[in-house]
Amino acid sequence: MAKKKPNKNTPPKKHSKRHQKMGKAPGTVIYMGYRDGGSTSVNVLEYDENSILERTIDPDTPDGLTFIEELTASPTTTWIDVIGLSDESFVEKLGKTLGLNPLSIEDAVNTNQRAKIDEYDNYIFGVFKMLYLDAENELVAEHVALVLSKNTVVVFQELKDDVFNGLRDRITNKTGRIRSRSADYLFFALLDAIIDHYYVVLENVNLKIELLEEEVYENPKSRTAHKIQELKKEVLRIRRYVYPVKELVNKLIDSEHELISKDTKLFLRDAMDHSTEINESLQIYREMSMSLMEMYMSNISNKMNEVMKVLTIMASIFIPLTFIVGVYGMNFDNMPELKMPNGYFYVWGLMLIIFIGLLIYFKKKRWL
Amino acid sequence: MAKKKPNKNTPPKKHSKRHQKMGKAPGTVIYMGYRDGGSTSVNVLEYDENSILERTIDPDTPDGLTFIEELTASPTTTWIDVIGLSDESFVEKLGKTLGLNPLSIEDAVNTNQRAKIDEYDNYIFGVFKMLYLDAENELVAEHVALVLSKNTVVVFQELKDDVFNGLRDRITNKTGRIRSRSADYLFFALLDAIIDHYYVVLENVNLKIELLEEEVYENPKSRTAHKIQELKKEVLRIRRYVYPVKELVNKLIDSEHELISKDTKLFLRDAMDHSTEINESLQIYREMSMSLMEMYMSNISNKMNEVMKVLTIMASIFIPLTFIVGVYGMNFDNMPELKMPNGYFYVWGLMLIIFIGLLIYFKKKRWL
Amino acid sequence: MAKKKPNKNTPPKKHSKRHQKMGKAPGTVIYMGYRDGGSTSVNVLEYDENSILERTIDPDTPDGLTFIEELTASPTTTWIDVIGLSDESFVEKLGKTLGLNPLSIEDAVNTNQRAKIDEYDNYIFGVFKMLYLDAENELVAEHVALVLSKNTVVVFQELKDDVFNGLRDRITNKTGRIRSRSADYLFFALLDAIIDHYYVVLENVNLKIELLEEEVYENPKSRTAHKIQELKKEVLRIRRYVYPVKELVNKLIDSEHELISKDTKLFLRDAMDHSTEINESLQIYREMSMSLMEMYMSNISNKMNEVMKVLTIMASIFIPLTFIVGVYGMNFDNMPELKMPNGYFYVWGLMLIIFIGLLIYFKKKRWL
Amino acid sequence: MAKKKPNKNTPPKKHSKRHQKMGKAPGTVIYMGYRDGGSTSVNVLEYDENSILERTIDPDTPDGLTFIEELTASPTTTWIDVIGLSDESFVEKLGKTLGLNPLSIEDAVNTNQRAKIDEYDNYIFGVFKMLYLDAENELVAEHVALVLSKNTVVVFQELKDDVFNGLRDRITNKTGRIRSRSADYLFFALLDAIIDHYYVVLENVNLKIELLEEEVYENPKSRTAHKIQELKKEVLRIRRYVYPVKELVNKLIDSEHELISKDTKLFLRDAMDHSTEINESLQIYREMSMSLMEMYMSNISNKMNEVMKVLTIMASIFIPLTFIVGVYGMNFDNMPELKMPNGYFYVWGLMLIIFIGLLIYFKKKRWL
Amino acid sequence: MAKKKPNKNTPPKKHSKRHQKMGKAPGTVIYMGYRDGGSTSVNVLEYDENSILERTIDPDTPDGLTFIEELTASPTTTWIDVIGLSDESFVEKLGKTLGLNPLSIEDAVNTNQRAKIDEYDNYIFGVFKMLYLDAENELVAEHVALVLSKNTVVVFQELKDDVFNGLRDRITNKTGRIRSRSADYLFFALLDAIIDHYYVVLENVNLKIELLEEEVYENPKSRTAHKIQELKKEVLRIRRYVYPVKELVNKLIDSEHELISKDTKLFLRDAMDHSTEINESLQIYREMSMSLMEMYMSNISNKMNEVMKVLTIMASIFIPLTFIVGVYGMNFDNMPELKMPNGYFYVWGLMLIIFIGLLIYFKKKRWL
Repeated sequence: MAKKKPNKNTPPKKHSKRHQKMGKAPGTVIYMGYRDGGSTSVNVLEYDENSILERTIDPDTPDGLTFIEELTASPTTTWIDVIGLSDESFVEKLGKTLGLNPLSIEDAVNTNQRAKIDEYDNYIFGVFKMLYLDAENELVAEHVALVLSKNTVVVFQELKDDVFNGLRDRITNKTGRIRSRSADYLFFALLDAIIDHYYVVLENVNLKIELLEEEVYENPKSRTAHKIQELKKEVLRIRRYVYPVKELVNKLIDSEHELISKDTKLFLRDAMDHSTEINESLQIYREMSMSLMEMYMSNISNKMNEVMKVLTIMASIFIPLTFIVGVYGMNFDNMPELKMPNGYFYVWGLMLIIFIGLLIYFKKKRWL
Repeated sequence: MAKKKPNKNTPPKKHSKRHQKMGKAPGTVIYMGYRDGGSTSVNVLEYDENSILERTIDPDTPDGLTFIEELTASPTTTWIDVIGLSDESFVEKLGKTLGLNPLSIEDAVNTNQRAKIDEYDNYIFGVFKMLYLDAENELVAEHVALVLSKNTVVVFQELKDDVFNGLRDRITNKTGRIRSRSADYLFFALLDAIIDHYYVVLENVNLKIELLEEEVYENPKSRTAHKIQELKKEVLRIRRYVYPVKELVNKLIDSEHELISKDTKLFLRDAMDHSTEINESLQIYREMSMSLMEMYMSNISNKMNEVMKVLTIMASIFIPLTFIVGVYGMNFDNMPELKMPNGYFYVWGLMLIIFIGLLIYFKKKRWL
Repeated sequence: MAKKKPNKNTPPKKHSKRHQKMGKAPGTVIYMGYRDGGSTSVNVLEYDENSILERTIDPDTPDGLTFIEELTASPTTTWIDVIGLSDESFVEKLGKTLGLNPLSIEDAVNTNQRAKIDEYDNYIFGVFKMLYLDAENELVAEHVALVLSKNTVVVFQELKDDVFNGLRDRITNKTGRIRSRSADYLFFALLDAIIDHYYVVLENVNLKIELLEEEVYENPKSRTAHKIQELKKEVLRIRRYVYPVKELVNKLIDSEHELISKDTKLFLRDAMDHSTEINESLQIYREMSMSLMEMYMSNISNKMNEVMKVLTIMASIFIPLTFIVGVYGMNFDNMPELKMPNGYFYVWGLMLIIFIGLLIYFKKKRWL
Repeated sequence: MAKKKPNKNTPPKKHSKRHQKMGKAPGTVIYMGYRDGGSTSVNVLEYDENSILERTIDPDTPDGLTFIEELTASPTTTWIDVIGLSDESFVEKLGKTLGLNPLSIEDAVNTNQRAKIDEYDNYIFGVFKMLYLDAENELVAEHVALVLSKNTVVVFQELKDDVFNGLRDRITNKTGRIRSRSADYLFFALLDAIIDHYYVVLENVNLKIELLEEEVYENPKSRTAHKIQELKKEVLRIRRYVYPVKELVNKLIDSEHELISKDTKLFLRDAMDHSTEINESLQIYREMSMSLMEMYMSNISNKMNEVMKVLTIMASIFIPLTFIVGVYGMNFDNMPELKMPNGYFYVWGLMLIIFIGLLIYFKKKRWL
Repeated sequence: MAKKKPNKNTPPKKHSKRHQKMGKAPGTVIYMGYRDGGSTSVNVLEYDENSILERTIDPDTPDGLTFIEELTASPTTTWIDVIGLSDESFVEKLGKTLGLNPLSIEDAVNTNQRAKIDEYDNYIFGVFKMLYLDAENELVAEHVALVLSKNTVVVFQELKDDVFNGLRDRITNKTGRIRSRSADYLFFALLDAIIDHYYVVLENVNLKIELLEEEVYENPKSRTAHKIQELKKEVLRIRRYVYPVKELVNKLIDSEHELISKDTKLFLRDAMDHSTEINESLQIYREMSMSLMEMYMSNISNKMNEVMKVLTIMASIFIPLTFIVGVYGMNFDNMPELKMPNGYFYVWGLMLIIFIGLLIYFKKKRWL
């Protein structure tokens, strides 16, 4: 736990990235992730209640951007999924095609960006963190940026991840009401999928707490304290990603932006319920991990007490006895007891009395 | 305490339920409880100041829904009690008959739903947790959903529970003012019955604290710390269910929804007083359980101190004496003291002086 | 401290009372105190700037209520003091005579009611806790309900207590401006008398903290920790009664109820100052009691350190010496040192050197 | 630290004062300080940009009040400095002359009054605490009440203190802009002088923290913990006096009272900056004193560890060796080793091996 | 860590500076830094989209101020950089030339001033702290004051520092959009550069935490606790400088001052995001440093436990054995065992049994 193994999901040179950006003008589009040189692909899903069209766009051809421009103008709902953000120049061109503010384009590829929602005149821009567990059950936070404009939702993400798979299926299979609703509902559905996945991560934390609780109660080791601290840090980390979401959803509900319909706000109210619940859970996990540490400390103290009792009992019983036998090991010429025929047995008797007396004393003190 | 026995009141496969829902569209009606396959029954109570009619409806016949539709339209107050939520399709049909939003129907059977109040144009929807103690004195939280529409209150709950029994009696026996008032008063009375039952649970917590306090003061054991931690978790759990209620009642009071009359708001003000009082109690219980842990730790330290004192006194007295008798156990050819006729008794005298000196020393240090 | 003696001021069967109420309709007038069967007396004080009339009313005659009704209508200020609340039916009749809402009448005899202020169209209803110290210096909280209506103030209380005695004297002796002012000033003056008495209780807490501080510094015992915890609980209890008052007074100041004149609000501002000060004091007492516990723990640790040092010094000095004398107590045939004429004295020399060496070592470590 | 010496700056009989007031009407002017029977003097400073007049008024002559009444009416700025508050009747007469509300006059001599600002139609009344260090470097808090009315500022204080000396000099020597500005600027300047002096007290706290930090790191003693607790209490005490000031200054800035000009508000903004800074410092000092206690506890634990290590090493090395020499001190007739010519030296060899082995073991454990 | 070396970046006589100011009128321009007698230089950068002019002004000639006055009037954007603040009279003259309020001029050279933003009719004045790490990796906080007036931004700073170097390059090299925008964008860009540098400091804290975490886990020493406390103090210090920035930027965004264009507010929103993120990080670092201390304490306790176990095992095994050999070292005339031919070997057998028995006992207790 003390030494971290290099993890393919952890940015290896985050610092240098941050430094690279320092001193640059705001709005400069710099990819802040650690998956440089990855390829970028664009999937487009165009649908209305009756028809659905799925297409992949080649980011290296100008036709792609033209096609996107056309889609944006059409009355059907369009979901543009940009996967892989390391190709900064393409993202910048795409952003301009969609009419995004340079600051939004910058944030779309800034994988360090905190969760946020910015309203512009013609679109709403949001950044969130998708949380999931990797193969080694470690927490991974992936950056995702969402743009809601008229009839169009654009998703910027790093990996072709499965958080939105259920949603894609619902659109394709015409399950639920999504096909009959407009882009703002799609925006909500994406947000809802992200929030829903937070529960998976929370359940994992809950499980870890239960396991640690058992470890603390049954067999606390020195490593247990480390594990509790690691858990606390994980909760802090999750809270950092998840905490702002509630306020952001609330902002959307209170927003008077024309892109968010009153109907969708009912659904957003649901999403806010979930965010509130998640924040409450995290608060509870935080208190529980602090209780775990307390419990651990009290267990250590209890163990020390037990150790001390054994020592004290052993020493208190045998030290006086050893003194007595030492007395009769002295070599004085004149020691009357030594001459007594039963002296040796009297001494044993005396020691037995002391022994039993001390046992009773410790029994009364409930140390035995 | 460390190992939890399986409890018939605890959902055994909550995780799988949650996963089942993930990726589904919001508004999909999925029963989240753990009492699958239970039967659903519907009790209807229709009353005005003069007459009262009680009926049970068979959920499997379409006549039931038609009857409910008629009742809803009539000017008398109707209390529809849906008991057992695992029959999702019936609940969905009933919800549509009552004109509920799909999101409300979803929440009616979502037993994991946090306490909430949602206002819609034609009805008010609330979810609360009924808390009570089971036969083993363990805390149980049951989901209950309330719908207030014109002249009608619908209650969705899992068990034919007794929280509302007093209220049913008051209506049947025409006690109190309930018969002469409209549906919003019934809604308040249901809420009031739920909040009133929180006090039972709080009193149980209070009792546990008093017992633990005595245990900590009188005879703290290693298990005591576990019990304190369990108590803390129980308080956290109750708080989670109960805490939102105050704000929700306040929302109802501030609400301008036409279904809540000014008169009923006076009563809601009373309910809010109770919620505030409950939240304050929980806060106090929380602080008291933290104090208990502190007290426990200080008791452990005190005990350790006592153990150490016994060891130190025993060792400090007998170790020097043992050294002295060791000296005269040496076998040197030339040890003048050994030849002295009273040497042995002089040594006893010396040891007695040392013994008394040390006793005085420890007495002065207040260790004895 | 651990076992509580039965206290004549503590409700012996509070739980049963609470249960008795459960399931009853809100507004049902049930006396929640523990002084059942006590007698009820009603004292009336009617005054204006020039005249004053004091009367006792027999609650068992209908004339009493008629008389009260007349008083309420007269333009002079009337202070009605209802002492003893266990006669529920009289209180209910009186409440109806005064035109009180059933909820207010319920709260007037609900001695568990949290501090509150409710505004109604024709009167203002407040519940507060009078705090004082009983003969054994224990904290007692008495329920008091105040009603301010036009020209009349009604006080519902359990005992003919002395908190309002100063105020009665001021009215009778025409001291201060109270005789020349209307009922809202009397209402304020009653509230002010209650708040003023909180200081007495706070001073008692302060004194306890000072005594405990001295005990912790001078001679901490195992009982000291218990006392600190009891103090903490007392502060929590006082805070519970006192904390809401500030907000309630503020509510009165902000209120636009016609019964509160602008002039009286100036005085209420003063009362709020006092409430704020009391809350701040309680906050400080809370922090100080936590510091006391910290101090206590550090003192225990220091004592343990001292104990350990004595043990370590004794053991470290005599264990090696005992080993040396053990060596020359061995019975080998061939031990050259034993034959040396001065061997015995050489060993003493060696032991002296070791003894002094260890003393110097411990001195350098500042353990001596 | 544990025993407090009587301090000439500490009220010796505060309790009795408080009790004396209890039951009195609000607005009763009772001096709450502990400097009874002190003399009262009144210094008046009248100035405009060109002229300045300084006078001392004899409080025992009616002429004084007449003179003050004339000054108040004149267009020049007047600073009336009332020093010594124990003459309640004079303060009351003066207050009436100045047109003050009885509540303000009461607060002017109520030295226990918390910091406050009350706005009246024709004047603004403020109470603050001047903090300084007495000759023994102990914190002293003096009550000061300020009244701002048209062209006049009245200061009620207990001692002819030096907090305002710099301000007096600036007026007399025509330094700064104060001579050319009106009374509200003088009011601000007095407030500013009070706040400025808080920094002196804070610096003293900072110094104490640094000294304690060194003591904790270098040579923590049992007394050190007491000192840390005393520091914490001092910070709590200062915070109590200083904390409300920020909010009060803010209230003045937001006030629409005609006595505060827009220009003076710019200066008040500066005073609020200082109050904010002071509150932040106190917060930091609070956290630092808690850290100090933590550090102290960790140091005690470290010391205990060290003590235990010495004991364990000494005991673990010599106890086995003593056992071995004990073996060969037995008196069995048949003990072959004793007959061996080099048996004694073999035993020494064995003991040396054990000794070195244990040293290596402890070295490996890093206990040496 | 305990003794601070004199640091060239730390004000050596801050106290005297503060005292010097006490009693002075507000608005008195006194340099509060510790770089007295340093020279002052003024660099001017004038630019619009097409042209750029850089000049250094000699503060000792009146021409300089005249030139600045002309620049301020011209429509091009002017960045005036005042480096070195100890020449109070020049700063005062410059301030008057720029039309600044005396309070702003005072704050421009008051290096103790907390971060603030004051809006005046014709300019906006801000004070911030630039944080960086000096050559010894210690945190340094430098005062910087910014003035935004029409077409002009003035920067008051102590050192020709590199925080703004990137910005200067962007202007000179016409990178980014800065050249085409007006003064309010320059003001934002300066603020953004300051905030960007906070990340460097935070990364350093993060690194320290990671190193300390390893030290605590691997090899905690007494010094480690000191380092953790120093870290906590550093976090407190950074928080003090950085915390107000978020609120200040928010104030600018909400401001309706005509100098801040709607366009620039979009960028300020970005700066606020960063401030929020920084505050969250500091909060997390704070919790992590508290966890570190907890971990450290639990490690000490664990170590103590281990030490005690070694002692207890050694003592518990050898003390009884030593007693046994002591028994047979007694010199009684009549001790039958001594005469037995194999007595010696029987005793060894007995001791072996005890030895093995105790080993098993400790093994079962998991102490071995």
